[in-house]
Amino acid sequence: MTEFDLAMSLSQSPEFRQKFPGVNNKVYFNYGGQGILPRASLDAILSTYQFLEEHGPFSIQANAWIQEKTALLRQDLAKELGTTTETLTITDNVTAGCNIVLWGLDWQAGDHLLMTDCEHPGVIAIIEALVDRFGITYSTCPIAATLNGSDPTQVIREHLTPKTRLVLVSHLLWNTGQVLPLKEIIEVCRQYSGEYPVQVLVDAAQSAGSLAVNLSELDVDYYAFTGHKWFCGPSGVGGLYVNPLRSPELRPTYVGWRGITYGKQGEMTGWKTDGSRFEIATSAYPQFEGLRAAIAVHQSAGNSQERYQKICQNSVHLWEGLNQIPEINCLKKTPPEAGLVSFEVKSDFSHHIWVQSLEKEGFFLRTIASPNCIRACCHYFTSPQEIDELLTKIVEKSQKGTIH
Amino acid sequence: MTEFDLAMSLSQSPEFRQKFPGVNNKVYFNYGGQGILPRASLDAILSTYQFLEEHGPFSIQANAWIQEKTALLRQDLAKELGTTTETLTITDNVTAGCNIVLWGLDWQAGDHLLMTDCEHPGVIAIIEALVDRFGITYSTCPIAATLNGSDPTQVIREHLTPKTRLVLVSHLLWNTGQVLPLKEIIEVCRQYSGEYPVQVLVDAAQSAGSLAVNLSELDVDYYAFTGHKWFCGPSGVGGLYVNPLRSPELRPTYVGWRGITYGKQGEMTGWKTDGSRFEIATSAYPQFEGLRAAIAVHQSAGNSQERYQKICQNSVHLWEGLNQIPEINCLKKTPPEAGLVSFEVKSDFSHHIWVQSLEKEGFFLRTIASPNCIRACCHYFTSPQEIDELLTKIVEKSQKGTIH
Repeated sequence: MTEFDLAMSLSQSPEFRQKFPGVNNKVYFNYGGQGILPRASLDAILSTYQFLEEHGPFSIQANAWIQEKTALLRQDLAKELGTTTETLTITDNVTAGCNIVLWGLDWQAGDHLLMTDCEHPGVIAIIEALVDRFGITYSTCPIAATLNGSDPTQVIREHLTPKTRLVLVSHLLWNTGQVLPLKEIIEVCRQYSGEYPVQVLVDAAQSAGSLAVNLSELDVDYYAFTGHKWFCGPSGVGGLYVNPLRSPELRPTYVGWRGITYGKQGEMTGWKTDGSRFEIATSAYPQFEGLRAAIAVHQSAGNSQERYQKICQNSVHLWEGLNQIPEINCLKKTPPEAGLVSFEVKSDFSHHIWVQSLEKEGFFLRTIASPNCIRACCHYFTSPQEIDELLTKIVEKSQKGTIH
Repeated sequence: MTEFDLAMSLSQSPEFRQKFPGVNNKVYFNYGGQGILPRASLDAILSTYQFLEEHGPFSIQANAWIQEKTALLRQDLAKELGTTTETLTITDNVTAGCNIVLWGLDWQAGDHLLMTDCEHPGVIAIIEALVDRFGITYSTCPIAATLNGSDPTQVIREHLTPKTRLVLVSHLLWNTGQVLPLKEIIEVCRQYSGEYPVQVLVDAAQSAGSLAVNLSELDVDYYAFTGHKWFCGPSGVGGLYVNPLRSPELRPTYVGWRGITYGKQGEMTGWKTDGSRFEIATSAYPQFEGLRAAIAVHQSAGNSQERYQKICQNSVHLWEGLNQIPEINCLKKTPPEAGLVSFEVKSDFSHHIWVQSLEKEGFFLRTIASPNCIRACCHYFTSPQEIDELLTKIVEKSQKGTIH
């Protein structure tokens, strides 16, 4: 056993897993929907409420404390994602971050946005709103079909047009679990010579907290993430990275008191120059502390590279097991490179009925509408036993012929 | 003692006040900054986390439960504010609601926005962003000066221009505590004949949860409020009312999965028609339950009219006492009509030093930069003893000559 194996097997030990009380009464494979909250997060949320009620909630002392803790959250996120604090905006979720970018660009009628055919409807909604408002156009390139072979970078290159201003891609596709070669995609966009420099906005809903992300190395333009999925923080806290080269030209849209500078009469004198320029007003601050506590738990288990390796080991374990079941067809034909494993069940029953039935028996997965499949997510602290239990349950249900 | 007096004196009883643990270790007058969280709110937040971790956090059951509770929050807010659920958007805070309206209008270069000289810098920031983006113009009318006599409605009427598209006013001014005659202001705007019908956006930061607000009767266009001030809910949850007549033409800006309708492939088919059209994505849902619990506590104390009367009684008590102190100058020369009492201290020390010194001794107030003053807020459950203690403390400090 190497040092890494030892460290990471500890993260699957019952002692470590007890840090996540939610794993006790179920077998959970929905980390891509929402992570299981560590006990330390809930404790941090609770003690923040207690602190604020004791010393505020609105007071000189409490307000200074919130400022300080918000700065620490920015530091923790920056460290975890390989960037610096001034590049980060604290948001509610991924979609909020995408809104900041998509509404902050200087769109002209006829400008083109390119996205993959695997983007989330919540983000597509923003693009539809931009079409209505500014008369931009968009198109979708067939990335889903590259899951088992062809080159997604090539597909994106072929779909750029002289009017393309922005490419929207997920780093890790939420439906099929494919990891896109982000560095190569960014390079292709940088090299393309059209009317505009082509910028890249990344939906990092599935990648932040699961892949080993180093934003400084990636040189991406915008990276929108959330704390409540793979980071296992409370719902309602996420973030946005804006490349320092893009930041000066990205205009603030939804704004408020958190993004401005003040004069002596308390009047607005201008915009902050860091990522807080895009922040609005009073947030669920105790949840900020909840996310910090969750990140600390992960860091105690290993760095992001080590956790990512363990996630892959777990996913491969699940994927290999699923491949042994005749009724199961894994969408990806080669071993998973991240925590998402999507599969079809050949059965008289719909995937929805399957997921519902599994949930009733304590196994938590979800359906995906397109492509029509079931998705299971393994985290680094998912145990081999959990995976084996799921496999056994699926075999049992498949063989029984009925799943009710 | 009338039935009302009896009911409301119960809300100041030690038993009722125990519902707000934060009143125990301090004398709190910052409800306009943030309310004190009822024990029931914190309990609701905690048990929501526990429920979600037991049955989810991401699962068919948990997701359905969140939908159901979100609908109940909308119902509770609708009941409290005298409107119907479809007019309400759940937001993070007041500023978020103002952003939805201000970015949702079809601004043309040269359009005019009129606001009072008492609006919050966080909201002014939005207007500055609109000026940059769309080339609108704005002006400010002198409402602060109407605190002790002249007619604010008349001032607003005089500042409307043929290009005025929107009037932005606070219902209850956060700096001086003046209640604006909203119904009359709306009427003046409706009657004005310029290039556009003049719409009215209300910053309800101080009024929601303190005045007895009936939105159906007011006939306002937009009313943006928060749950964390006078409603005493957790930070991070607020709302926006959009008049059903305005709703179809107000365009969604920041959007996400919560605002759209879906087809069979999980694809976006259009926008929801109610207020959820302007909602974005995953929020701090346990806080929704926290706000519901806070509203239930208030309703157990009396309806919004009864609570408002008690707030006024308390403010008048404070105002009368302050008027007895030679070193104090209350900005408002007639009795307060809401929970905010703003005053100057004639002293060698700045208001900031005063507030800091009071906070160290357990009395929580805040400074206002413009006009330069100190603000004290009385809630309906503020006790006469608290008010008397504050008055005694101010007298003591004034007479000592030094406040350190």
